[in-house]
Amino acid sequence: MSKTTVYEVKVMFGDCDPAGIVFFPNFSKWMDASSLDFFMQCGIPPWRELKKTHGIIGTPLLEIHTKFFKPATYGDTLRVHTHVQEWREKVIVQKHVVQRGELVLCEGLETRAFVIHPDGDPDRLKAIPVPDFIKEKCL
Amino acid sequence: MSKTTVYEVKVMFGDCDPAGIVFFPNFSKWMDASSLDFFMQCGIPPWRELKKTHGIIGTPLLEIHTKFFKPATYGDTLRVHTHVQEWREKVIVQKHVVQRGELVLCEGLETRAFVIHPDGDPDRLKAIPVPDFIKEKCL
Amino acid sequence: MSKTTVYEVKVMFGDCDPAGIVFFPNFSKWMDASSLDFFMQCGIPPWRELKKTHGIIGTPLLEIHTKFFKPATYGDTLRVHTHVQEWREKVIVQKHVVQRGELVLCEGLETRAFVIHPDGDPDRLKAIPVPDFIKEKCL
Amino acid sequence: MSKTTVYEVKVMFGDCDPAGIVFFPNFSKWMDASSLDFFMQCGIPPWRELKKTHGIIGTPLLEIHTKFFKPATYGDTLRVHTHVQEWREKVIVQKHVVQRGELVLCEGLETRAFVIHPDGDPDRLKAIPVPDFIKEKCL
Repeated sequence: MSKTTVYEVKVMFGDCDPAGIVFFPNFSKWMDASSLDFFMQCGIPPWRELKKTHGIIGTPLLEIHTKFFKPATYGDTLRVHTHVQEWREKVIVQKHVVQRGELVLCEGLETRAFVIHPDGDPDRLKAIPVPDFIKEKCL
Repeated sequence: MSKTTVYEVKVMFGDCDPAGIVFFPNFSKWMDASSLDFFMQCGIPPWRELKKTHGIIGTPLLEIHTKFFKPATYGDTLRVHTHVQEWREKVIVQKHVVQRGELVLCEGLETRAFVIHPDGDPDRLKAIPVPDFIKEKCL
Repeated sequence: MSKTTVYEVKVMFGDCDPAGIVFFPNFSKWMDASSLDFFMQCGIPPWRELKKTHGIIGTPLLEIHTKFFKPATYGDTLRVHTHVQEWREKVIVQKHVVQRGELVLCEGLETRAFVIHPDGDPDRLKAIPVPDFIKEKCL
Repeated sequence: MSKTTVYEVKVMFGDCDPAGIVFFPNFSKWMDASSLDFFMQCGIPPWRELKKTHGIIGTPLLEIHTKFFKPATYGDTLRVHTHVQEWREKVIVQKHVVQRGELVLCEGLETRAFVIHPDGDPDRLKAIPVPDFIKEKCL
């Protein structure tokens, strides 16, 4: 497990589709933003800093699994509750619960790796073991 | 099962993130576009027509499950191969395989319902049984 | 002229492009969100309400003109300062100034009309004179 | 002046807003894609190549000015006609005309600079004179 952080999102008109509700991939965008916010709230520097110090480019997704229960629309304020559900050797699983007030709108699992550009080659990405200094800050 | 359709996507600069690769929610956007393209290739009218004739607003997502194997970047041409993997009473499961040439970049399952505005109330959405005339055209 | 409102935006990773900075059309998205927020802060109901009461669908853009001075990146908190610079018979011009702290990052003018679906036809849009009740609330 | 290139765009459901039409910042995204496509059709390598060979990161926007005449919706196929209208010392002005068939939907001017990371500092951007080898290929 880990700490749980909360990331607030205000839904914009441009986030919504012709059905008048949030276009669903935006929930993934917001979970991704909340994932990064989680690391920053835990005291991890932004990736552009970690790239310089540790070569870490970011935490690309290996897998996402999201369930949508209720729609949202523009003008809504949402809160994404985020924690790490599972730490594996080279992978973490983050869970995000998106709420409007007490109402749960959707839930998602993200499986992420920490990646570098091997040998500094900007065209390639390689997963590394979850760094200890990152895990320690998140618990 | 069903027919399989192919939807082509050209990756734009604005689809990519600071890691230089496609920002992953865009794969969901493209699968959604391929889902709609599937129905249209099968001879189903666009939702804005079905709204008038059958009250059907669209096929919002109940659940998505996506695995990412390889990144893509701007300038790439991708093909989304789409079919219906499962027909349930009120739900269908579509499978999308995104390829660049022969290489599979990601795969996703989408669980969708067909929805209407019950009693014409534009603020509410309600699932209906999968319409027979839609299923027949897709097989 | 009019009131001036302020709309806060937190820049997400997914808002940024391979150059590591905000992909510029997102500034237009945020100005659009601030435009709507302006009307709501002035006491105008959301378009989905005005559609029912006055048939007004929204305020689509006729023209935008934006200057970009400084980039922003993920993690930044921006403020969009919005007011109506000009009221014409069928058109308004809104000005948006996007700042990070005191630093002005970009400025944009939006020319907007208020539109309805003429004769209830959802496939057509028609501009109407700027409604007095809207102008009065904004001054 | 310059060559004129054509870039095709298929409008997706997720490109449209609650009014059922293309959310206007997407036209900017497509003009940007057509701008890059213009350079590639003229024989300029992608920015990720030019970054290695010339340090050029891309062509960020200094200014955009767009007029919207007609809406588009999902299922539409659009064509963006792109050329360089003006070459200045450190700046170019590209013009984009977006059509559906013969119908002009919108027109936009983009003022762009060519930028590098000065002294290799990834946090800064600096404009350079328009490179001759680029101009020559575009004429």
